[in-house]
Amino acid sequence: MVNFMVVENTKFGKGAKVFFPDLVNIYGAEIGDNSRVGTFVEIQKGAKIGANCKISSHTFICEGVTIEDGVFVGHGVMFINDNHPRAINESGQLETEVEWKQRGMQCTTVKRGASIGSGATILGGVTIGEFAVVGAGAVVTKDVLPKAIVAGVPARLLKYRDE
Amino acid sequence: MVNFMVVENTKFGKGAKVFFPDLVNIYGAEIGDNSRVGTFVEIQKGAKIGANCKISSHTFICEGVTIEDGVFVGHGVMFINDNHPRAINESGQLETEVEWKQRGMQCTTVKRGASIGSGATILGGVTIGEFAVVGAGAVVTKDVLPKAIVAGVPARLLKYRDE
Amino acid sequence: MVNFMVVENTKFGKGAKVFFPDLVNIYGAEIGDNSRVGTFVEIQKGAKIGANCKISSHTFICEGVTIEDGVFVGHGVMFINDNHPRAINESGQLETEVEWKQRGMQCTTVKRGASIGSGATILGGVTIGEFAVVGAGAVVTKDVLPKAIVAGVPARLLKYRDE
Repeated sequence: MVNFMVVENTKFGKGAKVFFPDLVNIYGAEIGDNSRVGTFVEIQKGAKIGANCKISSHTFICEGVTIEDGVFVGHGVMFINDNHPRAINESGQLETEVEWKQRGMQCTTVKRGASIGSGATILGGVTIGEFAVVGAGAVVTKDVLPKAIVAGVPARLLKYRDE
Repeated sequence: MVNFMVVENTKFGKGAKVFFPDLVNIYGAEIGDNSRVGTFVEIQKGAKIGANCKISSHTFICEGVTIEDGVFVGHGVMFINDNHPRAINESGQLETEVEWKQRGMQCTTVKRGASIGSGATILGGVTIGEFAVVGAGAVVTKDVLPKAIVAGVPARLLKYRDE
Repeated sequence: MVNFMVVENTKFGKGAKVFFPDLVNIYGAEIGDNSRVGTFVEIQKGAKIGANCKISSHTFICEGVTIEDGVFVGHGVMFINDNHPRAINESGQLETEVEWKQRGMQCTTVKRGASIGSGATILGGVTIGEFAVVGAGAVVTKDVLPKAIVAGVPARLLKYRDE
């Protein structure tokens, strides 16, 4: 079945829902209770998504990303776990997964209740704080404090949610 | 059939064409005469697309978006209908569709003959004027006047088409 | 078979790999030895991809793009071959492929060993030099020199790789 091929070895919580299993690519991930995953989403092995999250269409969540409970991830959001990506090694050969692991992965955490706007790009190694808001189309290059609202390329602080 | 599952309840005009019905997600929308829709496109219920439009691959068109005749929408364009998205309500539960509707939706109109460049993000509640041009990768946060050419994050006026 | 429908008339080099042939749209292209192509990728006719490349998920590579050996293309990267796109001609009819060709296509080359970050948009007509780096989310509007590192919207030079 196509379903089996594209949603593989993934632990789904109670009530979690993938709207179109034929049109996603999820493997070796964890998705918590009641969370929703849209179409054209790829979630890589080792990625962890908490409960009550919305992961919108066209989004890519890579290995090394942890998304806590109640997080909104918009459409077309790209996470990154390698801030210095390359296709080839020093010898000009395709970099192997072992070589890539040796260079190290930059892990990212999105804390409880945060919202990431559509079209945002999240560099590796950052923490996005609780209830923080990342504006649509922003490129997040460093940590975002709890309840901070950031936007732009690179993302800069606009204000805090309670101000 | 896969086709039926992913292109659902949608009213297509005469000569309208979805290039790969297995690789789109279109439901409850209207698509006018002769319009073309690329791969990996999602068009939500209630979205209206006029005649003679080109909707390019990897694009997301949400409920509340009206696209008039003769509009070009590039690749990887993300429309938004909720400028303050969240996954959970005040009680920490997944926000329901009813709760979301109560918060209100921001509707967007793209007027006749406009062109939206690839990678652009269009915030909710804006009007993009007739024959306006949105540059590639722009983030549109407010109305764009007819024939205006805008670009950047946030999008700013560069000039008018006839200048 | 779905495979046949979506990966069509494409010349693959030895060891080249498309991870999920059901979830890509590749037609009339060339992909060199050992190169890898992720999910939700569209590669148009006439596009040429060298050996030992990584083309990541959600990326669109259009006609007129030449990617040399050892290039990394991140997730959600949009190439462009028409910097003044439009859906309709002067008479208000859908622009035909013949009319589009008459307006001319802007061709792009990505030279050996370059890396293009996720979420980047690459305007038509540019050359990205050998071992250059395009930052995540950048919008490239002009040539990038060899080993240059560029970022932002529009992309600007940050420094060179050996500095």
